[in-house]
Amino acid sequence: MKEWVAISQDLSLGHVTVVIVGGTGDLARKYLWQGFFQLYADQVGKGHTFSFYGGALSTTEKGTPLLFDILKELACPAELSVERCALVKDQFLHLSKYHQLKTTEDYENLSQQIKQQLGQEGIIEAGRLFYLSVPAFAYADIAEKINNTCRPPSEAWLRVVLEKPFGHNLYSAQALDKKLSGQLKEEEMYRIDHYLGKQVVSKILPFRKENKKLLDPIWNKHHIERIEIVLKETLDAKGRIQFYDQYGVIRDVLQNHLTEVMTLMLMNLPANLSNSEEILQNKLNFLASLQHVDNSNAVVGQYQAYNGEVQEELNKTKDYFSLTPTFAGVVIHVDNAQYEGIPIFMTSGKALDERVSYARVLFKSNVFCVQDPNNVQCKSKQIIFYLGHGTLQYPAILLSKNLFKPELVSSGDWKEVTEYKDVNVLGLQLSDYYIQSPVTPREAYCELISHVFFGRKDSFISAEGLLASWEFWTPLLEGLSRVFPRVYPGGVDNGNLLNFQLKGHQVAFSHEALVNVINPGAEDNFQVMQGKYRSSEMVSAWAQELVERLASDLLLAAEEAIREEGQFHLALSGGSSPVALLRALALNLYTFPWRNTHIWQVDERCVPHTESGSNFRSIHDLLLQHIRIPYFNIHPMPVHLTQRLCVEEDGGPTLYEKEIKKHVNGSSFHYILLGVGQDGHTASLFQDTKLENDEENLVILTESPNKPHQRMSLTFTAINRARRVGVLIMGKSKHELVSQLSRIKGESSKYPITKVQPKSGTLIWYIDYDALLG
Amino acid sequence: MKEWVAISQDLSLGHVTVVIVGGTGDLARKYLWQGFFQLYADQVGKGHTFSFYGGALSTTEKGTPLLFDILKELACPAELSVERCALVKDQFLHLSKYHQLKTTEDYENLSQQIKQQLGQEGIIEAGRLFYLSVPAFAYADIAEKINNTCRPPSEAWLRVVLEKPFGHNLYSAQALDKKLSGQLKEEEMYRIDHYLGKQVVSKILPFRKENKKLLDPIWNKHHIERIEIVLKETLDAKGRIQFYDQYGVIRDVLQNHLTEVMTLMLMNLPANLSNSEEILQNKLNFLASLQHVDNSNAVVGQYQAYNGEVQEELNKTKDYFSLTPTFAGVVIHVDNAQYEGIPIFMTSGKALDERVSYARVLFKSNVFCVQDPNNVQCKSKQIIFYLGHGTLQYPAILLSKNLFKPELVSSGDWKEVTEYKDVNVLGLQLSDYYIQSPVTPREAYCELISHVFFGRKDSFISAEGLLASWEFWTPLLEGLSRVFPRVYPGGVDNGNLLNFQLKGHQVAFSHEALVNVINPGAEDNFQVMQGKYRSSEMVSAWAQELVERLASDLLLAAEEAIREEGQFHLALSGGSSPVALLRALALNLYTFPWRNTHIWQVDERCVPHTESGSNFRSIHDLLLQHIRIPYFNIHPMPVHLTQRLCVEEDGGPTLYEKEIKKHVNGSSFHYILLGVGQDGHTASLFQDTKLENDEENLVILTESPNKPHQRMSLTFTAINRARRVGVLIMGKSKHELVSQLSRIKGESSKYPITKVQPKSGTLIWYIDYDALLG
Repeated sequence: MKEWVAISQDLSLGHVTVVIVGGTGDLARKYLWQGFFQLYADQVGKGHTFSFYGGALSTTEKGTPLLFDILKELACPAELSVERCALVKDQFLHLSKYHQLKTTEDYENLSQQIKQQLGQEGIIEAGRLFYLSVPAFAYADIAEKINNTCRPPSEAWLRVVLEKPFGHNLYSAQALDKKLSGQLKEEEMYRIDHYLGKQVVSKILPFRKENKKLLDPIWNKHHIERIEIVLKETLDAKGRIQFYDQYGVIRDVLQNHLTEVMTLMLMNLPANLSNSEEILQNKLNFLASLQHVDNSNAVVGQYQAYNGEVQEELNKTKDYFSLTPTFAGVVIHVDNAQYEGIPIFMTSGKALDERVSYARVLFKSNVFCVQDPNNVQCKSKQIIFYLGHGTLQYPAILLSKNLFKPELVSSGDWKEVTEYKDVNVLGLQLSDYYIQSPVTPREAYCELISHVFFGRKDSFISAEGLLASWEFWTPLLEGLSRVFPRVYPGGVDNGNLLNFQLKGHQVAFSHEALVNVINPGAEDNFQVMQGKYRSSEMVSAWAQELVERLASDLLLAAEEAIREEGQFHLALSGGSSPVALLRALALNLYTFPWRNTHIWQVDERCVPHTESGSNFRSIHDLLLQHIRIPYFNIHPMPVHLTQRLCVEEDGGPTLYEKEIKKHVNGSSFHYILLGVGQDGHTASLFQDTKLENDEENLVILTESPNKPHQRMSLTFTAINRARRVGVLIMGKSKHELVSQLSRIKGESSKYPITKVQPKSGTLIWYIDYDALLG
Repeated sequence: MKEWVAISQDLSLGHVTVVIVGGTGDLARKYLWQGFFQLYADQVGKGHTFSFYGGALSTTEKGTPLLFDILKELACPAELSVERCALVKDQFLHLSKYHQLKTTEDYENLSQQIKQQLGQEGIIEAGRLFYLSVPAFAYADIAEKINNTCRPPSEAWLRVVLEKPFGHNLYSAQALDKKLSGQLKEEEMYRIDHYLGKQVVSKILPFRKENKKLLDPIWNKHHIERIEIVLKETLDAKGRIQFYDQYGVIRDVLQNHLTEVMTLMLMNLPANLSNSEEILQNKLNFLASLQHVDNSNAVVGQYQAYNGEVQEELNKTKDYFSLTPTFAGVVIHVDNAQYEGIPIFMTSGKALDERVSYARVLFKSNVFCVQDPNNVQCKSKQIIFYLGHGTLQYPAILLSKNLFKPELVSSGDWKEVTEYKDVNVLGLQLSDYYIQSPVTPREAYCELISHVFFGRKDSFISAEGLLASWEFWTPLLEGLSRVFPRVYPGGVDNGNLLNFQLKGHQVAFSHEALVNVINPGAEDNFQVMQGKYRSSEMVSAWAQELVERLASDLLLAAEEAIREEGQFHLALSGGSSPVALLRALALNLYTFPWRNTHIWQVDERCVPHTESGSNFRSIHDLLLQHIRIPYFNIHPMPVHLTQRLCVEEDGGPTLYEKEIKKHVNGSSFHYILLGVGQDGHTASLFQDTKLENDEENLVILTESPNKPHQRMSLTFTAINRARRVGVLIMGKSKHELVSQLSRIKGESSKYPITKVQPKSGTLIWYIDYDALLG
C-alpha cells in the first residue's frame, strides 16, 4: 500500500470493504462500479482505506477478466485532472478484486481474507458494505450467508444495499421483510430507490425548507389546484418481458419512484432535515393519510405490441392475453385538512410520445386581470421539479416568476440559470420561470453510494415506509388484476387516447377507445333494477350503483323532510354494509343539507366512542369528519356514562330516548338505515333478544352472541315508527340469507329482520347483485 | 274608440291606465315610452283597453308638445309590418296624453278623469300602473299622493314601479321602505333592476333548470375554480357627477345589478320557477349565506380626471378630494358546503379599456392530458352568461364544448348559434363554445314593463331582498368611506394597474401603484411591538396584526405540545375579543394540527349550547364549523344537564373537572386564552366571586353582574396551572382598564384579572394599539 501514502496521511478512520454481489452484472457495469470509483476518488486521503470486491457465481478464472473489462472502462470524474485521475484509477484497479460468491464457504473465505489483510497491515476495520445487485429472490439466501459468515467485528458497521423489487404486493413484501430482518438489522439494510438519488428529488425537502416562509401560505388546498407526478417513456419493454410482465408499470414506477416523489412533496416538513427518524415518521404519517385507491381511481393501458412480445418472450400461445399494464394514470387524494380535495395525478407509461419526468404543483390563479391579460401576473403559476429529458433536457427546479423568487442557499451545489432557451416547458416559456439547476450533474447511483458510505438512511427506503407504500397500492393492484387495459398504438399515434379525467374522486379515460382488441366484460351493461322483495319495494344493482342510488334516495328524503319540517332525522347502523354508503355521502353528495340533518345511531357497541370497534367511531371517521354538520346535530348513543360502559343504573337508554323525544317529532325518524347480519339480526336486535317487555321502549340494552357482547339498540318500536326504513344488504356472504328471507312470509322469530314492518312508513330493500344472485 | 274596434273584439278584461310620472324625462324618452308602446302593440286586441298618461311638473301647455316630441320618435317593433305599425302607433298616440302631476289636486284630477272616461264608455277597470321615473327623494311624496287620491276601485290592481337608487345604505333603505310601505302594499310595489330584464339574466334560472342533471354534479366547490361577475365601461361619469358622486360604483352597479346576477347563479334552484315566493326565499337564503365583506375584501380606484370633474360640477375648491370610487374589485365567498372556498370576483369600473358585461363560472380542469395537449378536452372549461358588447357583441350563453351540450328548450325564444366569427371570447375561440342566443333581442325595459303588466313579481326586487343586499354591502361601504381609491389614468393606459389578487380571503392590487396622487395614512408603518406589561411579556400591534400574531403563537404552542405529548389542549374564552382570533384560526391557518387539538371552554353562560348567547355556540359557529376536528376532541362545558341549566346538584363542574383530569396531563392546559371585561373580570370570575373555598376546584358555578347571571368557569387554580396563558385585550373601550392595570402591582381584589399568575407557566398579554394607546 506504500504507493499512495503520498495522498493519504491519516488512516485512523479505518478500513472499508465494499462487496458488490452481482459485481459483473448489467447494473454493476453501468452504474455501480462508476459510483464506487467516484466514492473512492472523493474519499481517498480523507482517513479511510478501501478494498473492493466484485462477487458473482463464476469462478475466479472466469470472473476476473469480466470484472477487469468493466473496470478499465471507468470514466474519470469531471472534477479530477487527467493526471490525477490516472493515478486514482490505477489505485482503484489495484484495490479491486473478483471473488467467487456462491457457497457459504465462498463468503467465509471472503471474510477470512478481509480479516487477514487487515491483520497483516495493522489497520482497524471501519465497516463492510455489501451491494446486492442480484435478483430479489436471492436476497434472503445471501443475507443469511452474510449474517452467518461475513459480519465485521462489533465496532465496525455492516451495510447491505438492496435494489427493488421488494416484493410484489403487501404480503410478499412482508414475507421478504420477515426473512431479511431475521438476518440483518433494519439499520444495516439500505433499500435503494434510485429516484431518491436524483439531485432534484433529493433537493425537494431542502427546497421546501429554504423557501418555507413563502411556501407555507400557499402549500395547501386553498392555493394548489392540482399536482402532477409524471414519468413518460418512449421505450417499450421488449427484451425485458420476463421481468416486466410480472410487475407492470404500477409496481415498476408508481409504487416506488413516484410515490417517493409525492411523499417528499407533501409530507410535513421535518424540523430537522438530517433527522432520519423524524423524516421517516413524517413519511409514514403522510402515507397513512392517503385516501384508499381502487379501480375506480385508475386507468390502465397496454401498448399494442406488448402482448405479442409477451407471447414471444414467455413462449405463450397466440390466444394468451397478458393483463399487465404498461401505462397507468391514477388519481390520489390526501385525507387531511391541508390537502383534501387536491387531485394528485400520477402517471407513467412506456411507448409514449416523449421521454420526460417531472412533478409539478399547479396553483390556482388568484389574480383577476381587469385589463392587460398578457401580463406575467395573469399567467399560470407552478412549481416544477423537473427530473430531466423533455423539452428542458436538464434537471432543474422551476418556479413561475409570478410566484416568487426562490432562495438559493449558496451551498455551491446549485446555481441559478438565467440563460433562457426559446422553449416551452409545461405551458410557459422558459423565460417565465426562475430556474435552479445542479452545478454538476451527478448520477443517482453515485449519490446514493456516497449516502450509503455516510450512513444517510433518509435517502433510502425503510421497512416501514416500504410496507406503508405497499399497503396503499396493493388493493388497487389486486383490483386491476382482473381489468383489461386499454390498448394503445404507441408513440405520437396515441393521440388523446390515454388522456384521462376526474369524475368526483374517480377517473376515466376522456375519450372512447378507438382501438380495443379485447372486449371488456358484460358487467357494464347491468343497470339498477327495481322490484319487490318480501312484499316491499326492492332496489338492486351492482354494489357501487346500489350505494349511489341509496345515497341519492337519502338526499331526496332529506330535502323533502327539510322542506316540510326544517330538519331531517337520520339514524345510521353500524356494521360493514354502510361503509361504502357513508363514503359516498361524505365525498360525492356535495349538496346534502347537513346543516339541517341530525345524525342518530341505530345501535352501538358498549365500547368508548373513540375506540375503533365503536359504531360511532366509524360513522365519525367515514362521514362526520368530512362534512360540515353542526356539533349539536350529532347524537351518539350514550354507552359511556360516568366512566362506565352500559351499566343499567346509569340509564343510558332512557337518556337517549329522552333526547329522541326532545328532537324528533313524534319520535318518528325520517330515515332509519339498517343492515342485516348473516344470522338475520338487525340493529342490535338478535334472535335471543327479549323484546316482550319493550313495546314501550325506544332504546334498550341487548346482548350479542358476538363480541363485544353488550350493545345498545333502537327497538322495533322505534324502528317501525320511522317514515322510511332502508335495509342495505351487500355481498355474496348474505346470499343464502336473502334467499331464505324471500321464502318466509311475515315474521319469524328466527330472523329478527322480519320484524321490521314500519306502521305507516315505507320499507325499501337495497340488495346488491352479489347478495341477490350469489 | 270606434276606429280600433276592428282589431279588438273582446274588451272583457277591462281597462288599464298607465301613468309615467316623469313622463318627459330622459329615461322615459329613451326606454319607457318605447316599452309601453311595445306592450300596447303586444296586447292590443287581446282583451284589455289602455290609456297612457305622461305626467310631470310642467303645465299641460308646456308638457304636451314635449311628450308629443317623444312619442312621434317611437320605433316600430321588429315583428310588426310597416302598415300594421303605422296603425298601431296612430292608436297609441291617440291614447296617450300629457297630464300635469305636481299637487295633490293634479293627482285627484287624474283619478277623476280616469273614472269619468271609464264610466262614460262603460268599461270596467283592470288596473292602474304608475311608473315613477323621478329622483328617489320624491318617491315617498308621490306614493302618498297615489295612495290618497289615485287608488282604483278594489277589484282592480294598483302597481307602482320604482327605479333605483333605493337608499344609500341599509339605514336609508330601511327608512325609505318604511315610508313607502305606509302608503303602498308590498305587492303593489315593483322595484326595477333593469338587469333582471336582460334576456340573458332572466334566462339564468331556466338555464340552470333545463340543464340541472348535467350541472348538479359540477355546480359546487369541487368543480368550480372561480366565478367572475363583471361590468366594464369605457364611459366616465362626466356630466352625471351630481348623482354619481353620492353613490359611486358599488352602489351604482355592485349592490344591485351584479348582486342580482350572482344570486341567480348561486341561489338554490327553486322547484318551481314561477313561484315568486320560493324564489324570494331562496334568494334571501343565499344572501344570508354570504361571508361578511369589509375593506380587506375589496380594492377601489378612481379615474384620474374624476376629481377635477367633481370640483367643477359640484363647485368645489381645488383642494377638495372626493373618495367616491369609480372602480371596485371585490371578492365574495359563500359560507355553505356547496360553494365554500370559491372566490367570486365581482368588479365594475368606469373609464376602462373596453365595454363588456358578463358573468362566468370557470371550472377546474379535471383532465390530465398525457399527450395531445391541444385537444379540445385539454382546454379551459367555462360557462359564460354574456350580457353583451365586448368581442362577442351580442347577448348569449356560452359553454365550453368540453363541458356538455346544453339543452335548448324549444320555447322559440332562444336559438343555437353555429356560425362562428373568428374571435376570442374570454380565452377560447368562439368555435370552442356551444352558444345560445335570444332569437329577438329585446330591451330590458320592454321586458320588465311587460312583466309589470303580467304581475311577474319575481323579475323585481322585493323589500326583503333589497334590505338583505344592503345589509351585505353596507359594512363595506362604511369601511370604504375612509379609503383613498387608487387613481388610474383611464382606458388602455390603465395597463395592469387595476388587476387585483386574492390573499387568503382578502384582496389587494397585484401591482404597486405607479400613480398615486393621494397618500394613504401612515398606519401601515406600525409593526408588531414587543415589551413588558405587569412584569410579563406583552405583544402589541394594530388589531389585525395582533390577531395574526396570536394565531401564529398558538400554532407554535400547538406544534410544540404535539411534538412532546401528541396532543394540544386549548381552552377558549367567550366574549367578543376572541371573535377575530377564531376567524383567523378557522380561515387562515391551514396547517393547524386540529386532529390532535382538544378544545375546552374557559367559561360558559348557563344557556343551552344551541342558543346564540352561548359561548360554545360562538366557538362552534366561528371555528368548529370550519375545521376538521374530531368530535371527540370537543369539550363543551356541561351547563345543560338533565334538561336543566347549571343546577348545583347536577354536578356540572365536577363532571367537567373529571373530564379535564381524564384528558389533560396534570390538569395543566397547554394554552388558556383569556379576555378581560372593562370591570377587570376574566373567565367568568368577577369581583364578587367567592374564591376562598375553591382552591381545590378547577371548575365552579359563578354569578355575573350581567345577564345571563349564571355562569360556569374555570377557577384561578385551573388557569394558573396552565403552561401558557394569553390575555387578549382589544378596543378603545379597554384603554382605561389597561392604564389602571399597568399601575397596580400584584393582586387587587378589584380586578380579578390580576390573579392570573401562572405558577410555572408563561403569561403573555396581547393588547392592541386601541386598548394600549386609547
